[in-house]
Amino acid sequence: MRDFQLRPDGGLRHLLTLEGLPRRTLEQLLDRAQALRDEAYSGVSLRGRLAGHTVCNLFFEPSTRTRSSFQLAAARMGADVLNFDAASASTKKGETDLDTLKTLRAMGVDAFVIRHAHDGAVAALAEKSGGASLINAGDGRSAHPTQGLLDMLTLRQRKGDDFGSLRVLMVGDILHSRVARSDLHAMRTLGVGEIRVCGPGNLLPDDEVLAGCERVASLDEALAGVDAVFMLRLQRERMVEGLVASLDDYFRDYGLTPARLRRAAHGAIVLHPGPMNRGVEIDDAVADGAQAVILDQVANGVAVRMAVLEAVLEPEPQATTAFGPWCRA
Amino acid sequence: MRDFQLRPDGGLRHLLTLEGLPRRTLEQLLDRAQALRDEAYSGVSLRGRLAGHTVCNLFFEPSTRTRSSFQLAAARMGADVLNFDAASASTKKGETDLDTLKTLRAMGVDAFVIRHAHDGAVAALAEKSGGASLINAGDGRSAHPTQGLLDMLTLRQRKGDDFGSLRVLMVGDILHSRVARSDLHAMRTLGVGEIRVCGPGNLLPDDEVLAGCERVASLDEALAGVDAVFMLRLQRERMVEGLVASLDDYFRDYGLTPARLRRAAHGAIVLHPGPMNRGVEIDDAVADGAQAVILDQVANGVAVRMAVLEAVLEPEPQATTAFGPWCRA
Amino acid sequence: MRDFQLRPDGGLRHLLTLEGLPRRTLEQLLDRAQALRDEAYSGVSLRGRLAGHTVCNLFFEPSTRTRSSFQLAAARMGADVLNFDAASASTKKGETDLDTLKTLRAMGVDAFVIRHAHDGAVAALAEKSGGASLINAGDGRSAHPTQGLLDMLTLRQRKGDDFGSLRVLMVGDILHSRVARSDLHAMRTLGVGEIRVCGPGNLLPDDEVLAGCERVASLDEALAGVDAVFMLRLQRERMVEGLVASLDDYFRDYGLTPARLRRAAHGAIVLHPGPMNRGVEIDDAVADGAQAVILDQVANGVAVRMAVLEAVLEPEPQATTAFGPWCRA
Repeated sequence: MRDFQLRPDGGLRHLLTLEGLPRRTLEQLLDRAQALRDEAYSGVSLRGRLAGHTVCNLFFEPSTRTRSSFQLAAARMGADVLNFDAASASTKKGETDLDTLKTLRAMGVDAFVIRHAHDGAVAALAEKSGGASLINAGDGRSAHPTQGLLDMLTLRQRKGDDFGSLRVLMVGDILHSRVARSDLHAMRTLGVGEIRVCGPGNLLPDDEVLAGCERVASLDEALAGVDAVFMLRLQRERMVEGLVASLDDYFRDYGLTPARLRRAAHGAIVLHPGPMNRGVEIDDAVADGAQAVILDQVANGVAVRMAVLEAVLEPEPQATTAFGPWCRA
Repeated sequence: MRDFQLRPDGGLRHLLTLEGLPRRTLEQLLDRAQALRDEAYSGVSLRGRLAGHTVCNLFFEPSTRTRSSFQLAAARMGADVLNFDAASASTKKGETDLDTLKTLRAMGVDAFVIRHAHDGAVAALAEKSGGASLINAGDGRSAHPTQGLLDMLTLRQRKGDDFGSLRVLMVGDILHSRVARSDLHAMRTLGVGEIRVCGPGNLLPDDEVLAGCERVASLDEALAGVDAVFMLRLQRERMVEGLVASLDDYFRDYGLTPARLRRAAHGAIVLHPGPMNRGVEIDDAVADGAQAVILDQVANGVAVRMAVLEAVLEPEPQATTAFGPWCRA
Repeated sequence: MRDFQLRPDGGLRHLLTLEGLPRRTLEQLLDRAQALRDEAYSGVSLRGRLAGHTVCNLFFEPSTRTRSSFQLAAARMGADVLNFDAASASTKKGETDLDTLKTLRAMGVDAFVIRHAHDGAVAALAEKSGGASLINAGDGRSAHPTQGLLDMLTLRQRKGDDFGSLRVLMVGDILHSRVARSDLHAMRTLGVGEIRVCGPGNLLPDDEVLAGCERVASLDEALAGVDAVFMLRLQRERMVEGLVASLDDYFRDYGLTPARLRRAAHGAIVLHPGPMNRGVEIDDAVADGAQAVILDQVANGVAVRMAVLEAVLEPEPQATTAFGPWCRA
């Protein structure tokens, strides 16, 4: 999973994880996302940037939100977009994931945005992608790198780039969360001063995942003085699985309320990757309050995905293969 | 549901219902739809009109036909179109409708085309739409304003704009029909001379909905001398619910046959919102006959939706919010 | 099913089957597909070719692969593309197939790409298409003409156009295969020198379908000296239906392995329409080997579909009907 694969020209070959991505590259992606947002802001059309390229949202697990964000990012930069729902049985008909990818590649897909239920599945496909660039849009509980990037962009917009001075808290089901893993990789790379984690013991992963983090049992204590709170979604299935006694208990112990949030530093911000379970991990008054930057995250998501698509796609059509220009090697 | 919301500049803020829409505004929309159709007719490309705008078909209840009509209207005017199927459980994951809307808004959606199973759901969302424009594409049994507009455009094309001289009949399950409600609002606003309704007693709504209409028990009597017949779809579920004894009985009493249609005025037209149940509410010979204007309705639907999209979207990008240009306030 | 319907100007009215398609027309389509691929290859944008046209993928039976190929072909030539999933019950609501087609036609669809589970269903719709052009994307077991064309283009690219000198073998479930029927029609039209077929007796059709073909019981014998092997997909349902004893037995008798392939002529190529059942009809080493041209077939598929779309659509908007320019007669 260390396979972000930088190209010699400074572009990205794939974006599979944020683990090991050089700080300079990560910051370049954030800078580029910010610039694209500013350009769009000032009325510049981005439509020529990816014209002639084809981007395929290849989803082996359904996710309408993330797919929509990538679709809009690609379309606004002028790419052709193909949504391929590989989750339905009728699509696969016994075909291997790699054959599905290769088939779409032969149709001229230049970049694949891939969501998969299994850890490492996207990296495995990247080894044999035949020249196409792969962007991991979430695989199992391993990684969701564009979510990590958009969270860092949001953090930087609100708290500046002196990451060493920041105290950050992550709350909830870190064990099952690919968002948490990508956020943690990015925060360590950027040198965030202090990272605290808080959640039910059986929903916290082992020390390797939490390297450099401080575990704090009580949410009240954990919140003291932090500049940013990363709330995580509690999947309701966790109750069925017996990992959480009840949603009410969870809210009592780990739900973020206005009263609790007052323990954080003045001007602290609250992030959530969505979709939110109101009344489970977050109180309405916090979700809709002035400190929530949740919709900023969504807006930044489009900009970050634009920057990543641009980074993995060649600016100019180059070497061609036997499959023709719609399948460059 | 009185919330069509005119903007100060004469444009529409939202289009939620035709109830209370000023006659002048309604006629302007019809004029504009006609003009757009004529322009396309003469080979004018409309692609620059909505370029840079994003339209989202946000369907909490499935409807491929209406969604396709809006999709083509938006695409032909150059907008980016996002189809978001909010009906599937995997999409929602416990998220509120409003959070789904706000999330898509933060991705830069300028106008939402919304279908919802519950009465008033679109109007409720419009109160908190955060600057986006909402078009009701059908909510519960309440309203389907673009269907009402396309029906009026079709009526005007065939019968002229002297609405006061027209006699119109509506047949079938008016009780459950949002199409009927929008048609009735529009016809009263335009001053249609005489509106008759005919259908099984238990499928007719109360007097408030039917204000100004004449109830006629026998279809044969009701048809006498009318200039236009608005047939409604009988959902086959009504038989399961016991509201209709049998589909054969329904056809015998309320099905439109060529013999019956001869009782209408010379040159009377037959409308149907589709999809048709041939042999239930309408005979093949009528559906495919010279008096049917059912496909005209469909073609006018694209033009009307173009006009409405244009009316709710700003001609020029204006004030921006923190979410950037893809999320103007 | 003899209805390919040539237009007086040399264009195609519909493409429903390859049966009876004149050799010159078939070769013109292959030439045009090759030219379009070469143009794209040299960086020429094809986007203006179908600008202003609307293509609808109308799928009464799901098929994500074929639909994606047509979608990319149409989009890269600048057409508006509408994907209409007519397989779901919610879409149809009791509507006839023809009414669905006519409704979409009235929305301004110029060409329909239709997949249907029933033999002859596309031809039946073509009789009443109201001016729209229909492309059969597979109906029952009858025909899949664009697959036949892309297979011939691939064969010609690799083996030249002296078809009379070629020996070809088709292996597997020909009985249920529309791909096989379209390939056989095309190969007979092009005058392929020798066509052998091999498969379980109960999966081979009658002599009419196999006119001009030689049945060979043993795959080893059948392969001797052939220049191209057309492998067919074995649907796993055939085992449930009792038509195949076991998938292992099938692979033992009819699976293509490297050892077997060595019996073919030097440089023989292997085709497969996909999706492949690895280990059932084809061995991994063959599927991924140098003689497989399976991904070439996929790439050629986009080019062939571009050529067919171009052939059925008028170069210039012409006569218009009452439905306006988006519904030319």
